[in-house]
Amino acid sequence: MEPDDTKLQFDDDGNLRHLLSLRDFDATLLTRLMDEAEAYLTAPGALPARNHSLAGRTVGNLFFEPSTRTRASFDLAGRRLGADVLNLDVNTSSRKKGESILDTIYTLEAMQVDIMVVRDASDGVPAYIARHVKDHVSVLNAGESDVSHPTQGLLDLLTMRQHNPDFGNLAVAIVGDIQHSRVAMSASEALRAMGVGELRLISPPALIPDASRFPGAVIVDNLADGLRDADVVMALRIQRERIGNLDGIPGIDEYFANYGISHESMKLAKPDAIVMHPGPMNRGIEIEGTLADGPRSVIAKQVTNGVAIRMAVLSRIGKMMSAQ
Amino acid sequence: MEPDDTKLQFDDDGNLRHLLSLRDFDATLLTRLMDEAEAYLTAPGALPARNHSLAGRTVGNLFFEPSTRTRASFDLAGRRLGADVLNLDVNTSSRKKGESILDTIYTLEAMQVDIMVVRDASDGVPAYIARHVKDHVSVLNAGESDVSHPTQGLLDLLTMRQHNPDFGNLAVAIVGDIQHSRVAMSASEALRAMGVGELRLISPPALIPDASRFPGAVIVDNLADGLRDADVVMALRIQRERIGNLDGIPGIDEYFANYGISHESMKLAKPDAIVMHPGPMNRGIEIEGTLADGPRSVIAKQVTNGVAIRMAVLSRIGKMMSAQ
Amino acid sequence: MEPDDTKLQFDDDGNLRHLLSLRDFDATLLTRLMDEAEAYLTAPGALPARNHSLAGRTVGNLFFEPSTRTRASFDLAGRRLGADVLNLDVNTSSRKKGESILDTIYTLEAMQVDIMVVRDASDGVPAYIARHVKDHVSVLNAGESDVSHPTQGLLDLLTMRQHNPDFGNLAVAIVGDIQHSRVAMSASEALRAMGVGELRLISPPALIPDASRFPGAVIVDNLADGLRDADVVMALRIQRERIGNLDGIPGIDEYFANYGISHESMKLAKPDAIVMHPGPMNRGIEIEGTLADGPRSVIAKQVTNGVAIRMAVLSRIGKMMSAQ
Repeated sequence: MEPDDTKLQFDDDGNLRHLLSLRDFDATLLTRLMDEAEAYLTAPGALPARNHSLAGRTVGNLFFEPSTRTRASFDLAGRRLGADVLNLDVNTSSRKKGESILDTIYTLEAMQVDIMVVRDASDGVPAYIARHVKDHVSVLNAGESDVSHPTQGLLDLLTMRQHNPDFGNLAVAIVGDIQHSRVAMSASEALRAMGVGELRLISPPALIPDASRFPGAVIVDNLADGLRDADVVMALRIQRERIGNLDGIPGIDEYFANYGISHESMKLAKPDAIVMHPGPMNRGIEIEGTLADGPRSVIAKQVTNGVAIRMAVLSRIGKMMSAQ
Repeated sequence: MEPDDTKLQFDDDGNLRHLLSLRDFDATLLTRLMDEAEAYLTAPGALPARNHSLAGRTVGNLFFEPSTRTRASFDLAGRRLGADVLNLDVNTSSRKKGESILDTIYTLEAMQVDIMVVRDASDGVPAYIARHVKDHVSVLNAGESDVSHPTQGLLDLLTMRQHNPDFGNLAVAIVGDIQHSRVAMSASEALRAMGVGELRLISPPALIPDASRFPGAVIVDNLADGLRDADVVMALRIQRERIGNLDGIPGIDEYFANYGISHESMKLAKPDAIVMHPGPMNRGIEIEGTLADGPRSVIAKQVTNGVAIRMAVLSRIGKMMSAQ
Repeated sequence: MEPDDTKLQFDDDGNLRHLLSLRDFDATLLTRLMDEAEAYLTAPGALPARNHSLAGRTVGNLFFEPSTRTRASFDLAGRRLGADVLNLDVNTSSRKKGESILDTIYTLEAMQVDIMVVRDASDGVPAYIARHVKDHVSVLNAGESDVSHPTQGLLDLLTMRQHNPDFGNLAVAIVGDIQHSRVAMSASEALRAMGVGELRLISPPALIPDASRFPGAVIVDNLADGLRDADVVMALRIQRERIGNLDGIPGIDEYFANYGISHESMKLAKPDAIVMHPGPMNRGIEIEGTLADGPRSVIAKQVTNGVAIRMAVLSRIGKMMSAQ
């Protein structure tokens, strides 16, 4: 993201226009979005919340990287708000024909697809698109390279708030491949804005990120140091291919022994600490399967919150559009 | 399916909760489902039947094997009942990332996808999922390895009833690769429950199934013996790769000559006997093309009945859910 | 298309039943369709037009060739008219199982999919399907080999009319691989019916089409000759693989120099001439990127008109069906 992308995200009245990154979100806006998302939560088995905030609008899901969960989450969020959702598997069509991303966007824009949900493996693509769309079009970042995954950051924040709304007294530990994690980045930005008590980033030495990207965070390479008395422990997905290249971690067993979140390692955290994971999980690698399925785990809650957060964001965008 | 899966399919009040197999369906339930499906049939060219039994519900189509027809059939059935239908092509997304089936299910469950339609190449997957989902979630088997395809069994039963409702006087011949056919299994279970007069299973010697899987059926390897005076003749799809390995059947011409359902071989059946096929057909291999397109064929009817049967099943599930 | 396909397209009362080609459309019908499409245009940012012309109907999108834009355009057009739209990626399912096109069609027909939108790489497939479907089913050609792309022809015609409705005084230049272009064919048929002043087809010598396919058109191999004083300039997509085989055009730079539509080459056209392209574009090959994005370009308008034209066609088909 370029320095002036803040202006890009908000219109002159301060309304959210594009969702590119949480970097410039303040506690007030984050709190309001979490409150709005809470209103979309219903009991398991009850019908999901619905309204007509996006009736008549079209949402385009443009996933230039494969994804089931985030795409499905945006799809359901859009449909439950009354939108038409167009799912484009961009790998298998336009790109085969060599069409540029911008031309795909211009085409959708001309079809009156007014909300573009974009996932891309390259840094800067959502902002690049946002700078080029027409005034009435909104771009939502659904996962951008290693740098940003704002709706994930929002759902993680909401999940932590449900555990303990007093962020100032919260110690949050994020464990794994921090260097390549857009999840860690967006969560950190959101937590910083909420004035989190302590943010600890734990990763193998080879995957330790540039500290300047995570101001205020404590960065350590020792799991025990990072987990001690934590309130929230978030395990990150590790790409299996990366494991073989880590010093002293020849395989997945060693990764699990050193950085896996397990019943054993959770003993260091607070007794009521929660366990999070953005999914999809590598059970037995970064997280112990029975822990993920047990009472400390809020992983399913994260998914539920994800739909609610996306409904909150989409609904805001819809209201902003209707007010134009 | 494990012995105790009967309990899994029905709740304490005897309502259908999951549809895993027809093994434990009795004539009363089968008849009711057929009656309910009949109510969804409209004249060709007329608008298809619609109602709001599933309004607000979300159906997830999880096809771990490729399929056009069954997926489309469930998709249309769900939408015509007012549901949101989420089509997940699981090969190209989650499984690429190594996510387990259960984690995919837990994710969808957390997104309030309350009805999971599952097709899988492995024996036991639908029941395995049904044992793990929350109380308010239903699992519908849309094709399971070689063992079960219950909505296919129901639509086949309905199609036969439309020809002649007196099952006790019906001779049904199923022809082809019985050993690997979930279609034959589910049809046999349904027919047995209805007290079918005679069920004959005809297949090349190498593809003859274990007789214990088809109690009451007559199993033969000679087409003429099986077809004589049959009321219903159902040809099964044969995988071309299997043909070369059959004794005395070096190629598709020999397969057609020995086991193909043709105008010629149908002379052995009753004059008004109907011809069925679950699709997709290999014309000229297991069935003669002009026979499939001719007046004895009820193959298109089977497809129409398929949507109606799926609407009947989905609608029942929806009512059970609303009553909870 | 066979000679008697005209009868196929219209019913006994002259209503449009299938849309296979524009060859037999007269100025009256073309004008009405354009007028109906105009009624579906709304301001950018405003909600797209919607109605219930296809409520309860099911549209099947059968794309046997990959496509993003045309498929999305039909999908949105159908949904904005209230239809259920079933998107079938036929490459990855039925065809894997060796099912014939007709069996796929018969299956969809039996599921009460009453409007089939078909794209296929083979000449004659849409008409072949239209000859085999039941009386109440309509087939819309969404791109057929090198020979026909009627909704593209209609949207191109509408876009030209928006520039200047006086077709008799219009000089239209189409540039590129005319020989393999279904876009050029359908545009030519529509323009001829409207009594276009001049139609010029410009292509490299190796890609010059059989003149009998384009009666009344001026065919030239020199760009300057073709562009002089043109009112409308349409660049066609060129397949990169074709370029290397053209005499005197060893690469894309030479193609652009000789046949590219650029700010420079547009100086030959009328000062207010518009630039069109059916997409997806190869920027820098058949068209200069900044020209495509500049004020002379109506390329985005073409896309917008495409949805409107498809809504007009679908809505007509829906009315014809309801009247049956």
